[in-house]
Amino acid sequence: MTMTAYVTDFVGRIAQPCATRIEQFIADTSFDRPTLVLDTDIVARNFAALRAGLGHADIHYAVKANPEPRIIGTLVRLGCHFDAASRGEIELCLRQGADPSAISFGNTVKRASDIAFAHRAGITLFAADAEEELEKIATNAPGAQVYIRLIVGATEADWPLSRKFGCAPDKALELLALARDLSLDPVGFSFHVGSQTRHASMWAGTLDRVADVWRDARAAGFDLTLLNIGGGFPAFYGEEVQHPTLYAASVMDQIARRFGDVPRIMAEPGRGMVADAGMIAAEVLLVSRKSHDDMHRWVYLDIGKFSGLAETMDEAIRYQLVTDRDGDETGPCILAGPSCDSVDVLYEKRPVALPVTLRAGDRVLIRNCGAYTSSYSSVGFNGFPPLDVVVI
Amino acid sequence: MTMTAYVTDFVGRIAQPCATRIEQFIADTSFDRPTLVLDTDIVARNFAALRAGLGHADIHYAVKANPEPRIIGTLVRLGCHFDAASRGEIELCLRQGADPSAISFGNTVKRASDIAFAHRAGITLFAADAEEELEKIATNAPGAQVYIRLIVGATEADWPLSRKFGCAPDKALELLALARDLSLDPVGFSFHVGSQTRHASMWAGTLDRVADVWRDARAAGFDLTLLNIGGGFPAFYGEEVQHPTLYAASVMDQIARRFGDVPRIMAEPGRGMVADAGMIAAEVLLVSRKSHDDMHRWVYLDIGKFSGLAETMDEAIRYQLVTDRDGDETGPCILAGPSCDSVDVLYEKRPVALPVTLRAGDRVLIRNCGAYTSSYSSVGFNGFPPLDVVVI
Repeated sequence: MTMTAYVTDFVGRIAQPCATRIEQFIADTSFDRPTLVLDTDIVARNFAALRAGLGHADIHYAVKANPEPRIIGTLVRLGCHFDAASRGEIELCLRQGADPSAISFGNTVKRASDIAFAHRAGITLFAADAEEELEKIATNAPGAQVYIRLIVGATEADWPLSRKFGCAPDKALELLALARDLSLDPVGFSFHVGSQTRHASMWAGTLDRVADVWRDARAAGFDLTLLNIGGGFPAFYGEEVQHPTLYAASVMDQIARRFGDVPRIMAEPGRGMVADAGMIAAEVLLVSRKSHDDMHRWVYLDIGKFSGLAETMDEAIRYQLVTDRDGDETGPCILAGPSCDSVDVLYEKRPVALPVTLRAGDRVLIRNCGAYTSSYSSVGFNGFPPLDVVVI
Repeated sequence: MTMTAYVTDFVGRIAQPCATRIEQFIADTSFDRPTLVLDTDIVARNFAALRAGLGHADIHYAVKANPEPRIIGTLVRLGCHFDAASRGEIELCLRQGADPSAISFGNTVKRASDIAFAHRAGITLFAADAEEELEKIATNAPGAQVYIRLIVGATEADWPLSRKFGCAPDKALELLALARDLSLDPVGFSFHVGSQTRHASMWAGTLDRVADVWRDARAAGFDLTLLNIGGGFPAFYGEEVQHPTLYAASVMDQIARRFGDVPRIMAEPGRGMVADAGMIAAEVLLVSRKSHDDMHRWVYLDIGKFSGLAETMDEAIRYQLVTDRDGDETGPCILAGPSCDSVDVLYEKRPVALPVTLRAGDRVLIRNCGAYTSSYSSVGFNGFPPLDVVVI
């Protein structure tokens, strides 16, 4: 079967029925608070689609995207590996049956005691981007494999990463050398193209820059074996994205052309693995106008920035909304959350079009909310409980 | 005793020793995760200071600022009233012994079933800013007292509120009339000058505008008895603020000059009641430079935007930091949190000056963190537990 045939078959077979399974569950259920409904079959489908494109690369699911234990358990059974940000995420993966050798400790900022914990638990692969981090790893996980995270400049991602993670190329080789001096095993580099990089073609510039550093390191005598390509695999939020298999295959093809035969490639999809596996059932609490000449209605939901929709910050992620009144005439709305906090406004700069018939008590479904929602939720800001999660 | 004599005595007597009690506790304690240490004696002191200035006004503590049960219990015993944002906050206050008549349901966006709950619990005072909200209150809390929240334009607050809450003056009288038609009891107006309004003189313009609406309403035959002046009472974050008693007395004086003798005045301090009652004990996880020519160091703490310091969003609140190396030479640092999230950077546009000797493992104290920290904390983003809270 060719790649194209596989993808066609794949999409035709299961794309729509799964989305409908969540919608059917929500339609049949009454909720007394905002609830994220997750379908692990969709996670399994996404894993298969990414694996089909990523070939021999190891998929390390970025646990932070959604640490729901049943998602982790599903992925363990499928042979997925894991990228953990903390001791808590490592413990979660181990509890769900992950082998320590399948977990990398990918946060470049780690507490010394957490490195020691991971080392005792059998984890052997750690990220670093600074001298002090390498020293902490050498002390607390002697002999461990380390990869150096690179900053590789501006990208075309919907949500470009800041300079928070990684070191500039001018330090990369020195850090490899320091790791070797500290009796660590410097195996390679990692980078990140930026969250929600919607087309594989956007990887080209970043890969060019990483390949330059890779070549310099090998020329300097470092026998690199690992290239960690990070995340960036996109989810659908209304703007066209490539099919994950085609996307991943295109990225792998670009890597092969620049890096040749790399023994070990790691990819860390998070959003691309789980975003479309979840939908939030929410409710309209109030529809109002502020004055007689207000151009927009204000629509207040029972979920907001502090109860799950943190990624609406700066209106970065634009979720798709579904209501029972879709089909009625629409008008522009400012969408806001339920808390007594003036920053808890979801979309104001670019209002959303919602039915003019919408009113308090109406249900609103928020599509593709499986990533970066439930775990961002506050413990109880304004006395609202955290986002409820149901796995079907 | 004159006001001035009282204030002088007050400041001289208890301002410093209480701050030292928290610092002493932190110095004597080892923490294995970021921890907010709260001193309820300071809350009691702040209540007394505000009451001395607010005179006959009722103080409704804005529970959302810090819902720690022992803070609520302390304030119940002192005779404080409460402003609740949700059913959860109402239940909390009742559990701590508050009388329902001392609780107002101040969120203008309420779930219908929560209004019914509050009504059953004996709460009689509700906020509204829209027709649909009044209809929900009339249905679920028939006969209740309501106040209409006004939008009163730009302020000089450090953190001005958006248009999220309130209605424009052109709708205010119509809403009073609608409330009456719905057999509710429209008792007055509320407004908010904006969080962290640092000087009492900044209230003048807002009070002028509210007084205009107040006069119009009385002229239209509404027998208003309640003026809810909201919050805005400032906390100290490094920029000079007035003493709370002088500040509150000045606000009350401005109100008297504009409104005359108002039977019932409510004030809703949150930040001003609890901010300086808390200090966070945190730890440096990493100090690094991104490249050889990096002008700034990056300092990563074990606490960030998602584990308690949400108010660093847009660098709005600038917390004061204390380290054991204070006194050493300092240099500019970008301060970031521990999560694998590029937006988890606390101060970058305006870097902070920290000792050049600072390194991983060092303790960092964050001053005046009693407000809007613990309850904003995420349930477990990146696998990090929520901010721990200790009350001394």
